[in-house]
Amino acid sequence: MSQPTTASLQTSESSVAAIARRARIASRAIAKLSAEARNEALIAVAQAIEQSARKILDANERDCRAAEAEIAAGRMSSAMLARLRVTERGIAQMAAQVREVARLEDPLGRRLSATELDDGLVLYKESCPFGVVGVIFESRPDVVPQLASLALKSGNAVLLKGGVEAAHTNEALVSIWREGLRRFPAIPADSINLLQTRADVKEMLTLDRDVDLIIPRGSYALVQFIMEHSRIPVLGHSEGICHVYVDRAADLDKAIDIAYDAKVQYPAVCNAAETLLVHEAIAGKFLPRMVAKLKGANVEIRGDAKTLALFPKDGIVPATEEDWATEYSDLILSVKIVADLEEAIEHVNCYGSRHTDAIVTEDAEAARRFLDEVDAAGVFHNASTRFADGYRYGLGAEVGISTSKLHARGPMGLEGLTTYKYKLHGDGHTVGPYAKGEKKFKHRRLD
Amino acid sequence: MSQPTTASLQTSESSVAAIARRARIASRAIAKLSAEARNEALIAVAQAIEQSARKILDANERDCRAAEAEIAAGRMSSAMLARLRVTERGIAQMAAQVREVARLEDPLGRRLSATELDDGLVLYKESCPFGVVGVIFESRPDVVPQLASLALKSGNAVLLKGGVEAAHTNEALVSIWREGLRRFPAIPADSINLLQTRADVKEMLTLDRDVDLIIPRGSYALVQFIMEHSRIPVLGHSEGICHVYVDRAADLDKAIDIAYDAKVQYPAVCNAAETLLVHEAIAGKFLPRMVAKLKGANVEIRGDAKTLALFPKDGIVPATEEDWATEYSDLILSVKIVADLEEAIEHVNCYGSRHTDAIVTEDAEAARRFLDEVDAAGVFHNASTRFADGYRYGLGAEVGISTSKLHARGPMGLEGLTTYKYKLHGDGHTVGPYAKGEKKFKHRRLD
Repeated sequence: MSQPTTASLQTSESSVAAIARRARIASRAIAKLSAEARNEALIAVAQAIEQSARKILDANERDCRAAEAEIAAGRMSSAMLARLRVTERGIAQMAAQVREVARLEDPLGRRLSATELDDGLVLYKESCPFGVVGVIFESRPDVVPQLASLALKSGNAVLLKGGVEAAHTNEALVSIWREGLRRFPAIPADSINLLQTRADVKEMLTLDRDVDLIIPRGSYALVQFIMEHSRIPVLGHSEGICHVYVDRAADLDKAIDIAYDAKVQYPAVCNAAETLLVHEAIAGKFLPRMVAKLKGANVEIRGDAKTLALFPKDGIVPATEEDWATEYSDLILSVKIVADLEEAIEHVNCYGSRHTDAIVTEDAEAARRFLDEVDAAGVFHNASTRFADGYRYGLGAEVGISTSKLHARGPMGLEGLTTYKYKLHGDGHTVGPYAKGEKKFKHRRLD
Repeated sequence: MSQPTTASLQTSESSVAAIARRARIASRAIAKLSAEARNEALIAVAQAIEQSARKILDANERDCRAAEAEIAAGRMSSAMLARLRVTERGIAQMAAQVREVARLEDPLGRRLSATELDDGLVLYKESCPFGVVGVIFESRPDVVPQLASLALKSGNAVLLKGGVEAAHTNEALVSIWREGLRRFPAIPADSINLLQTRADVKEMLTLDRDVDLIIPRGSYALVQFIMEHSRIPVLGHSEGICHVYVDRAADLDKAIDIAYDAKVQYPAVCNAAETLLVHEAIAGKFLPRMVAKLKGANVEIRGDAKTLALFPKDGIVPATEEDWATEYSDLILSVKIVADLEEAIEHVNCYGSRHTDAIVTEDAEAARRFLDEVDAAGVFHNASTRFADGYRYGLGAEVGISTSKLHARGPMGLEGLTTYKYKLHGDGHTVGPYAKGEKKFKHRRLD
């Protein structure tokens, strides 16, 4: 397999506009492809990834060696190296994920509505690609084939910017992707592009003519930076300050399992719980068991005054006002005893980040009120906040998670990468006769 | 009917944050209302508007007198006064529009999807209100009841800022609205608010904690100003540079009617055509008839070189590069002769503003390509661009028009004022067993 010239993958600060321009042209080409053509290309790329395992592992080895030097110098955590490292099994999984995306339902050309406006005048609302999407992400290289496959499946061209630590691995993956597409002349190589530097990203954020959507995946600091500097619409998530509220009518066993899972199962992610709210009527029975279990997993508990009063000698740290607004992303949990459901809802709406919040209760009416009144992308009843995830939701794959209320909320799958257009079919229809009252609209729904 | 204290309607620069805070609280209250309760309130308000006709006319008279002074001083156009003036018939129409909104389908609580993730674990995606919406609009006072009714119908609280010219009329309308709501204790007066000054608007644009969405309705300059200064998501439209392309296979009678309607029927609006593209194979036959008809309506024609060659002595102005990118909003039309469909599509994608573009042709394949490949909110076949409008689309009422690709594209009705949340119902479900592979997701679509 011949190597693509590295020149075609390299970018300089002044050329991001040119890359975006070419991506725009490429996006028009891939938007025209049939679902079959897009899926066939995805399957070919999956194969190319498997066949190029050596190349990926070699490139990754270079990144990992550089990362080890950084760790030795105390400039990187070993957790980051673990995320960076690609194994043979990881490569097989990348290919499998691309094939899985090929199997998903076509997100394009879906008829969202159809209305007969008048005789011979029919309006269709149909899903279509955005065009060019820019994604900024941090160290994990398996994000490259994941995003590239979602973009191609949804008919979008993509500009990718990964972490510097993974530069060689990402470059290998993009070059293999382009290589895999070579036998599809209808799919331009420019449909996938890798940006190299932070300056490239800053330039991309100004290119609102040629880039339609920006998705930042990573830390809150990254998302904030992007939102502040972008002239292009941004979909991303703010902090994940998720709550579990244990109601007076909770089944305590379920409550312990759910709160433990939400905090301990993977504390570093945005859908992990940061605050546990407990109804005062059951606090005395519930909290001792809960705290014991959490302490067994080395969770630091920061309690409000009422909680502290329950555990006078138990080494619980007093929670400050700041704690309620903090995403720990760590084995720390703030705990507050509330007087009733209303206080719980109010606390969540005041301090939450509108990501995901759960109630544990056997009282259907309390659950209904919590789910209706809490203002968040995900509102859960008797289930862990950790379910807030595109794969778990059955979206097939996740482009990102949005805490915005515009367009996409919560985990975004392929649908998040589509917009729609209105197609109107007439037979010479003009507005004049309707404006004069000579003709009247029928507005008959056809769906 | 008692007068509300004007204090409750007045705002000062420092208090917009307080108004938004109270609107946030009000939004939580109205989000809980049943569809019946919201509709009943709308009908009561419609009646209040009719019963307060005198108050509205008096307030409007003050605004109109001030406007006449402005016109005399050459600081305002008489067209603006015409838009400002409210008549008894206009008041009856306002009330009728509010009743029409009451009759529309409930946009809240719609089930957008349902998925069984596993036994006893079911995920619903349901429409819900945004919360607090800010709308900035220019002179027409009938926008107040229109927006207020759409907001209440969709469970949103609203902050309105109208034009200074209509200050008294708008204040009367908001005070009547609040008055009409008085007998509904579940609907706080703070669900509708009027901002007074430009400084108020600037402050509102920073209140991203308490305002969820900004909709600017008015000139492109207004929209740009809002977009540049807002920390809150903005839905609005850029310029309306709409095209009519007359294909080689066009029915020339239809083409003449459509292009004439698109340009002449109401040239000041964003969905009027600015550029006519003509296939060279039919230009010689089509353009003389078209130009004669347009000239009969005093339309100034600006042609490219090929067009000019067709009309050597006809007083057609040469079009410059700038013309293709200009929204005239006036009786001016740029005309370009293109070699083929591809050139037409390319021209539209290059110079258009992604608002609405039309093809006139009897060739179904050419129509399909134009509708698929032109990147615009509305793509029309054998129909005038002037149909791009929420009322004509059958959306019931129009909140605004979006040329963004995020969330809402084209005319936005009630759906544009809703977002969604994911509701997950479990029975003590935790992620742990799925992460360990002990349990598997089913992901069965229930809809």
